[in-house]
Amino acid sequence: MNTFAPPVQRLVTELSKLPGVGNRTAHRLAFHILRASGDDAAALANAILEVKQKIGLCEVCFNLADEARCRICQDPRRDHSTICVVEEPSDVIPLERTHEFHGVYHVLGGALSPIDGVDPEDLKIAELLTRVEDAAGAVHEVILATNPTTTGEATALHIAGELHQRSPQLVITRLASGLPVGADLEYADEVTLGKALAHRQAV
Amino acid sequence: MNTFAPPVQRLVTELSKLPGVGNRTAHRLAFHILRASGDDAAALANAILEVKQKIGLCEVCFNLADEARCRICQDPRRDHSTICVVEEPSDVIPLERTHEFHGVYHVLGGALSPIDGVDPEDLKIAELLTRVEDAAGAVHEVILATNPTTTGEATALHIAGELHQRSPQLVITRLASGLPVGADLEYADEVTLGKALAHRQAV
Repeated sequence: MNTFAPPVQRLVTELSKLPGVGNRTAHRLAFHILRASGDDAAALANAILEVKQKIGLCEVCFNLADEARCRICQDPRRDHSTICVVEEPSDVIPLERTHEFHGVYHVLGGALSPIDGVDPEDLKIAELLTRVEDAAGAVHEVILATNPTTTGEATALHIAGELHQRSPQLVITRLASGLPVGADLEYADEVTLGKALAHRQAV
Repeated sequence: MNTFAPPVQRLVTELSKLPGVGNRTAHRLAFHILRASGDDAAALANAILEVKQKIGLCEVCFNLADEARCRICQDPRRDHSTICVVEEPSDVIPLERTHEFHGVYHVLGGALSPIDGVDPEDLKIAELLTRVEDAAGAVHEVILATNPTTTGEATALHIAGELHQRSPQLVITRLASGLPVGADLEYADEVTLGKALAHRQAV
């Protein structure tokens, strides 16, 4: 149904490609952009173009960066002896939001999933091993913060094996699994509850 | 918290200005754009710029148009003797989706709301009156499809009065109010149910 002129249709089509944006939301966003000032629309368009031009991956941790190294790797106040390994750059945000972690990151770029054709050499695993080895003992702990899913667990296990083989003195940890804060036992799934029980802690 | 490089922060800021997009959704959209191909991101940015450059208002009905007249006003198969008056260009979509309306539109650009400083001269009301008069009897019906809200009702009443004064023979109608299809009486608000009762129809 071509009610609207081609430029509007094109904008709706492009907006619909965004995650979680269906046809109706795309229409709503398009009308917002049509009502917005020319400057606001240009700012959005330029931000999209700029991010693709300027953003690359950090040469150390493979997080997003607009320079050779990302802001976290450049920060001398961070604890460079603790590396937190995550799947995606987007996983860094929730970890930073906790304000509990002061080390540095290593972004794998995904999780091992042979069924989808993701093998160890498709992730930044070799780079992590080299990074730990090159630090010559300066890295004390590697926290494996891949997702608590089948692929995330497999990735963590694989990396733990490789690291342990090369640096037996390295502390290798995994994020705790258990009940989310504020959860209700009645509605907890049995796998999570099982983990919470198995890893119960002394009060 | 500036975890990410300025271009990423800027994109998140610009995306957060879209309606219904909070900080988390903006991050999700930004990461999608970062993962997308350069071509896809450029297509989105260009669609935003193009829509602001090329889209104006139809000289007849004030709907969105990339030419002097919109596609509906240009269409000889549409019934130009029936004009449906709506508040915004976005109201045209749901009406077209019904496939029940084959006439043309008149987009007011809002609804009367003295409290917000929206007076009759801020809307395309004079243009509607001129349009009906210039048609010299060729317009048979005007459907007032403003929203069933206080401001929409006030706008419809105002326009109905003006039209009736100038063209007493013109048929002026309003969209029916009543229960939405699939609704449950138990959960209907009393105003809607009152309307549904008052305008009950013979079976």
